[in-house]
Amino acid sequence: MPESSHGAQVTGRKKMYELVNVALGETEADLAIVNGSIVNVYTGEVLTGDTVLIKGDKIAYVGKDTGKAIGSSTKVIDATGKYLIPGLIDGHTHADIVYSISELLRYAMKGGTTTIITEVYDLTFSLGYQGIIEFLRSAKNQPIKIFITAPSMVTISPVAKEHALTVNEVSKLIRRKEVLGLGESYWAPVIAGDQRMFDLITETIKARKKLEGHTSGAKGNKLQAYIALGISSCHEPITVEEVIERLRLGICVLIREGEVRRELEVISKIKDENIDFTRLAISTDGVAPQQLTTDGYMEFVVQKAVDLGFNPILAIQMATINVARHFAIDDFIGGIAPGKYADIIIIPDLRTIQAEYVISNGQVIAENGQLVIQPRKHTYPKSIQNTIRLPRNFDANDFAIRVASDRSQAKVRVIDQVTELVTREAIIDIPVSNGQLQPDASKDILKVAAIERNHLPGKTFVGFIRGIGLKQGAIASSAIWDSCDIMVVGANETDMAQAVNRIRQLGGGIVICADNKILAEISLPVGGTISTEPMETIAQKLHAIQQAATDLGCTLPDIRTTLAVLPTPAIAHLRICEHGLVNLRQNRFVELIVE
Amino acid sequence: MPESSHGAQVTGRKKMYELVNVALGETEADLAIVNGSIVNVYTGEVLTGDTVLIKGDKIAYVGKDTGKAIGSSTKVIDATGKYLIPGLIDGHTHADIVYSISELLRYAMKGGTTTIITEVYDLTFSLGYQGIIEFLRSAKNQPIKIFITAPSMVTISPVAKEHALTVNEVSKLIRRKEVLGLGESYWAPVIAGDQRMFDLITETIKARKKLEGHTSGAKGNKLQAYIALGISSCHEPITVEEVIERLRLGICVLIREGEVRRELEVISKIKDENIDFTRLAISTDGVAPQQLTTDGYMEFVVQKAVDLGFNPILAIQMATINVARHFAIDDFIGGIAPGKYADIIIIPDLRTIQAEYVISNGQVIAENGQLVIQPRKHTYPKSIQNTIRLPRNFDANDFAIRVASDRSQAKVRVIDQVTELVTREAIIDIPVSNGQLQPDASKDILKVAAIERNHLPGKTFVGFIRGIGLKQGAIASSAIWDSCDIMVVGANETDMAQAVNRIRQLGGGIVICADNKILAEISLPVGGTISTEPMETIAQKLHAIQQAATDLGCTLPDIRTTLAVLPTPAIAHLRICEHGLVNLRQNRFVELIVE
Repeated sequence: MPESSHGAQVTGRKKMYELVNVALGETEADLAIVNGSIVNVYTGEVLTGDTVLIKGDKIAYVGKDTGKAIGSSTKVIDATGKYLIPGLIDGHTHADIVYSISELLRYAMKGGTTTIITEVYDLTFSLGYQGIIEFLRSAKNQPIKIFITAPSMVTISPVAKEHALTVNEVSKLIRRKEVLGLGESYWAPVIAGDQRMFDLITETIKARKKLEGHTSGAKGNKLQAYIALGISSCHEPITVEEVIERLRLGICVLIREGEVRRELEVISKIKDENIDFTRLAISTDGVAPQQLTTDGYMEFVVQKAVDLGFNPILAIQMATINVARHFAIDDFIGGIAPGKYADIIIIPDLRTIQAEYVISNGQVIAENGQLVIQPRKHTYPKSIQNTIRLPRNFDANDFAIRVASDRSQAKVRVIDQVTELVTREAIIDIPVSNGQLQPDASKDILKVAAIERNHLPGKTFVGFIRGIGLKQGAIASSAIWDSCDIMVVGANETDMAQAVNRIRQLGGGIVICADNKILAEISLPVGGTISTEPMETIAQKLHAIQQAATDLGCTLPDIRTTLAVLPTPAIAHLRICEHGLVNLRQNRFVELIVE
Repeated sequence: MPESSHGAQVTGRKKMYELVNVALGETEADLAIVNGSIVNVYTGEVLTGDTVLIKGDKIAYVGKDTGKAIGSSTKVIDATGKYLIPGLIDGHTHADIVYSISELLRYAMKGGTTTIITEVYDLTFSLGYQGIIEFLRSAKNQPIKIFITAPSMVTISPVAKEHALTVNEVSKLIRRKEVLGLGESYWAPVIAGDQRMFDLITETIKARKKLEGHTSGAKGNKLQAYIALGISSCHEPITVEEVIERLRLGICVLIREGEVRRELEVISKIKDENIDFTRLAISTDGVAPQQLTTDGYMEFVVQKAVDLGFNPILAIQMATINVARHFAIDDFIGGIAPGKYADIIIIPDLRTIQAEYVISNGQVIAENGQLVIQPRKHTYPKSIQNTIRLPRNFDANDFAIRVASDRSQAKVRVIDQVTELVTREAIIDIPVSNGQLQPDASKDILKVAAIERNHLPGKTFVGFIRGIGLKQGAIASSAIWDSCDIMVVGANETDMAQAVNRIRQLGGGIVICADNKILAEISLPVGGTISTEPMETIAQKLHAIQQAATDLGCTLPDIRTTLAVLPTPAIAHLRICEHGLVNLRQNRFVELIVE
């Protein structure tokens, strides 16, 4: 036994003795919760009259024979008439978007979420391996547990692909205890035979970790081809039929109720099926600042499941033990039983998911919606701030699309925004003036550009988009999915340049401007994607940006997200990155000008 | 990527492509099972009319759209009117007893057991770390999957304790992929604060493996104190109440139906409880040659569960997915779904667990109870054969217990065999003659001796036992639990010496003799515990030994097992090893002569 680990070993043994002795009723617990009704997520029962004894960060005992365990050094919480449920777990989210981790934790903690399992795509695309390490640092020694999945980084951007984590880097990450699996990998490129993905999958299986899936739109043979590689979950189904198809394949299905999609209502009909629900879970898949400040976090999702008619015990299981089992961390979290971390929330009744007490790692962290202790604020190092490496300011010329000057128009492949997320291809005649293709806001034909901002900074592709609705001005964002691009959409090139230049000046952010005037903005200095301001300020600034967009004619409810997903291979079907347009059905770059 | 792993990587990628292409219906499967009804252990449904496509050792697809996957190179099994269920899993057994692994596999394979998770205590107590490595070698490249748990080796024997695996050895073992956890550790010494056990538990948790429990007789605080250390299963409950108490603690309960105990009938009443059964499993905890040759293996256990009124789907889940989930190996075994190993058995109907086909790793290994391929016979190296290191032959004097010659009797602490397994303490007046305490077969007071055979060879403790029933002769065995002792019981010292000497000559075995004549015997040359003969021969020889014992007056049904458990700390409550008698309630050595 190396000298250096001896101290930890002794501490470990001491904690084990203490736990045993409290369980035996021989020494005093630190915390006792008495007289409550306890939801046993293992059997599905509610058991009344038991006391939960807690020593240090763990539950020592659940029962009636407390012996000498409740003494003068024991804090006692009387839960008469109340219900104890395990701390909530968000099994699939994106905690590296827009806000710093401590701001998310403020809302998680007060609402009763005690474990977050998150993707870290945004930080990884912008900062690479260092981004992940920094996220893990920010997540360390917090009052609640944070795990990540290692980003598989499927992307349409050749630059991002070139700078993606190597197989060795993922292999190293996947072996860390905070890393529970390989992050979501969009199915189509995987079954098309992406060798790097095959190698990442192999490394993950070797490390006995989970392969998080992303099967949106897949069914039948294609779905099964993807699952056959060892994929163990999916959070993408949008109908009861899709959920059942996946449950039959043995994977865990996490129903989404968050920023990008809200599926719980439609899928709630599944509650009447007579099948095993132990692989069914609920998660947010990322939650926007506005939602957090208005609705809350996982407690809102569980409440909604209850309100939609799920048996409250099942609703709780879907946000606790079912998630823990999926990630094979149920040996230490997910239920109220001896040996598990003391992550418990006390609610007034089974149908009201409002935490009167939130206990995490044995510590009361919130009471009646107010934090008792604060999450640790992480100081992000200078090296990951102000990472927008554009070498110079843009001007209108940078967004010009030149064609032969004798042409009066050209047939152009336009990104057609059919929902706020889904796009398709529209072939549209675009007028030429001064040898340039011209946007026409009156017909809702705007320009869109993707600008690489880190590895090949300034590399730009300009195209057209329909369905945004802006009548004037431009909006740009450096908080973009699955690439390291700035995305800008505008009615004219001058405003586009101003929006991008302002982001360059801010060191990352979202900016909306018109007529040479900044209308609203948020600064995202950390990796170009994260604000260091309080959640409420972020929510307010994002609201102001959306309001400004709406005032400029934007018809979409969440322009920030619409911009963000423009390069993602996750959503059908015409996408854009700094190298051009990609048709996801054909899995290849396509020309802007058709003829 | 190191050069040496490159070949494996290419092979791995190729197999992944093949699986995907079969799932897509684009290339031919190796095996297709058509027209069957498939038990979906994930949802609990039976789905009809689907085809299972298998490529290599994995399932590629389960459904109706087989495309071009069934072609001229595809073997097709028509399962019209039949049911497909996952290959059975024995989640807790002792596969290192008496028979070699290939002999067990003959029975496992033909009955439909495709995964065995076994303790390796016997080989470890006799051969140490080398015994485990040799077992793993014997289990490698077999037609079915064999996993082990690393022996925690709780023992009453000071010699065995001194030579137990070190924490570092266990730590190394536990990280191997064939090792799923730390083997059963008897609860009482653990909660008494065994530091080595605490360290083994810590290493196991670090490696994200399971802590197999052994909670016989524990309840309430003591049970919870043990579980609080992170224990994740138990196979010891003998009543419905005990099972429910454990399920509520979140651990997996494996109901036993095997050599030492048969609990299924009593516990079957649990089927009417309205609780979550996904943590309930069935296992053998070791199965005797006689049982294997007469009843069979796990198929017998599942059949019995069905016959006792368990819903057949639940009975199947308890021997497949529930076990796989417990050990966190459900990503690759336990159900019929794409990406899982093709371990499938075809049965005539849901209530008849008789495998018409057994498929393991995609290969048909048995048809209608006949093996199609044979398990690999393992050649045990000379170094682990003939390991009885007794330096000389024993004689009657070695079993003498001398007292002051003027005494006519002494109050002696006698092992009182109250069932074939459980003992208690009886204080009995034993007559003295020639300065020696004398057995008296007419009153069923026999001598019992434990002889260390490896680390301190010849170290002997002699005591008395009641409840065996032998009227004459002696029986000895080197196949003993939780120590490296030979155990011998006899009506007189001369026969005891002969039995032990014969074991010495055989290099390990079980021997029964009377009047200077060997009545029956079996040679166990491998580690002193394993025969290399066919299962049927072993069964026949053990039967002959039992018959001889019965003929000599033995009243116990399985004298081999009664001898074997004499030193175990697992069963209450007076035990014997080479150093003396141990009272398990007091957890200490106690004197033979009370006054």
